Amino acid sequence: MQNPQITLIGAGPGDPELITVKALRALEAAEVVLYDALVNPALLDIVPAKAPRIPVGKRAGQPSAKQEDINRQLVEAALVYGHAVRLKGGDPMLFARGAEEWAYAQEVGIPVSVIPGISSIQLPGLYGIPLTARGLNTGFRVVTATNRFGALTNDLRLAATDGQPTVVFMGLKKVPAIAAEYLRHGFGELPVVVISQGSSPQAQVLYGTLATLEAKLETNPLPAPALLVIGENVALSPAWSALQSHQNLQSA
Amino acid sequence: MQNPQITLIGAGPGDPELITVKALRALEAAEVVLYDALVNPALLDIVPAKAPRIPVGKRAGQPSAKQEDINRQLVEAALVYGHAVRLKGGDPMLFARGAEEWAYAQEVGIPVSVIPGISSIQLPGLYGIPLTARGLNTGFRVVTATNRFGALTNDLRLAATDGQPTVVFMGLKKVPAIAAEYLRHGFGELPVVVISQGSSPQAQVLYGTLATLEAKLETNPLPAPALLVIGENVALSPAWSALQSHQNLQSA
Repeated sequence: MQNPQITLIGAGPGDPELITVKALRALEAAEVVLYDALVNPALLDIVPAKAPRIPVGKRAGQPSAKQEDINRQLVEAALVYGHAVRLKGGDPMLFARGAEEWAYAQEVGIPVSVIPGISSIQLPGLYGIPLTARGLNTGFRVVTATNRFGALTNDLRLAATDGQPTVVFMGLKKVPAIAAEYLRHGFGELPVVVISQGSSPQAQVLYGTLATLEAKLETNPLPAPALLVIGENVALSPAWSALQSHQNLQSA
Repeated sequence: MQNPQITLIGAGPGDPELITVKALRALEAAEVVLYDALVNPALLDIVPAKAPRIPVGKRAGQPSAKQEDINRQLVEAALVYGHAVRLKGGDPMLFARGAEEWAYAQEVGIPVSVIPGISSIQLPGLYGIPLTARGLNTGFRVVTATNRFGALTNDLRLAATDGQPTVVFMGLKKVPAIAAEYLRHGFGELPVVVISQGSSPQAQVLYGTLATLEAKLETNPLPAPALLVIGENVALSPAWSALQSHQNLQSA
């Protein structure tokens, strides 16, 4: 057994090959692994046979472990087994509470390190959508759609006031409220894309505007996890111009 | 020779082990590689011996290829050699003009795919800095500091009006102007960190406030590339509280 230590690693957004080489090596050296529900099970095959694999996932809408319980489980695992690897979906420090796990472990004197993972913020790139583009914009926002009371966040409301490029986490169930907020500020024509299960074989992408998205999702419901990207940049995707040509042909 | 195709891949922020498994396989299958100056040379050893390696890097402050020339070189390489891998620092679609290369290749009918890389946006996590934290904030901004005329961007100016957590690219040379902008809005005490050459063996991190950063950088200049992170979240880093205790001891 190694000395107690914790490595927080990111599994990436879905495709198991989007894990980093460094995270793969951490899994190979793990003495115990605590993993999220969203993590691709193929990654657990890399863990040494004798290392316990403990599911601790939280998943929207399902009963699951509290963050405080996960913090405690992680520390206990490191004390019992040595090198504890905490395998999280996406990046362990972006919308992922890795920092809370780090802070808890630090209080009991267990060293922590982080190995980043590909975040959902990077999914738009797979579809040719740049979050910044020369001559168009020089920055973007990343926001979560709802606060702990289930209402739209101030960050989302602020984004709707100026329509600048915004990546929205946890927004799928809030599409009607999000669209209403943008429409109130005159942004009905602003392009938007929903990326569902991005980078996995089940990935689906739905393009629209804030005025059309709700109806499109009713016809074609998409499963979580899903990311929204809102802003003119969405129209830079090669698929967007192909769609526009197709629609023009249909209405001609 | 394979059919002409282009794969845009991200090398990550510096540590060569932060490349994804998928990008590694693309390098192994490359028939020609066009790479950026900031990319770790160790990654080129993975490329098959017979595949040409063409440097096309742009680096701040040095004469380098124009983006239009890179677009053309990339397409020509794919037409001559088959599978052209474009290896870029960080993520190929975040502040990286991957979308311009994609659009150019699409015009001549060459298929393009993207393999994301760990972005500098993910470097704060290495130091225990979460860009969102429960009870503190629900979103953040990512901005580039200067526009094409060398002035502060509107995105940076907007960030300075509310002090919300912001990741700043290309800000190292503009620290005096950035600090002045935040001070004008009363944010002199706001925490800030400079992450220089993050994730590499030469990585250096400098903590301060917007009131102290300029003087600290004069005493301790840091080399590019460097990322700034501005906001209360910076104070969540374990190093921040250690520094505060140390300073309190010194002044006691």
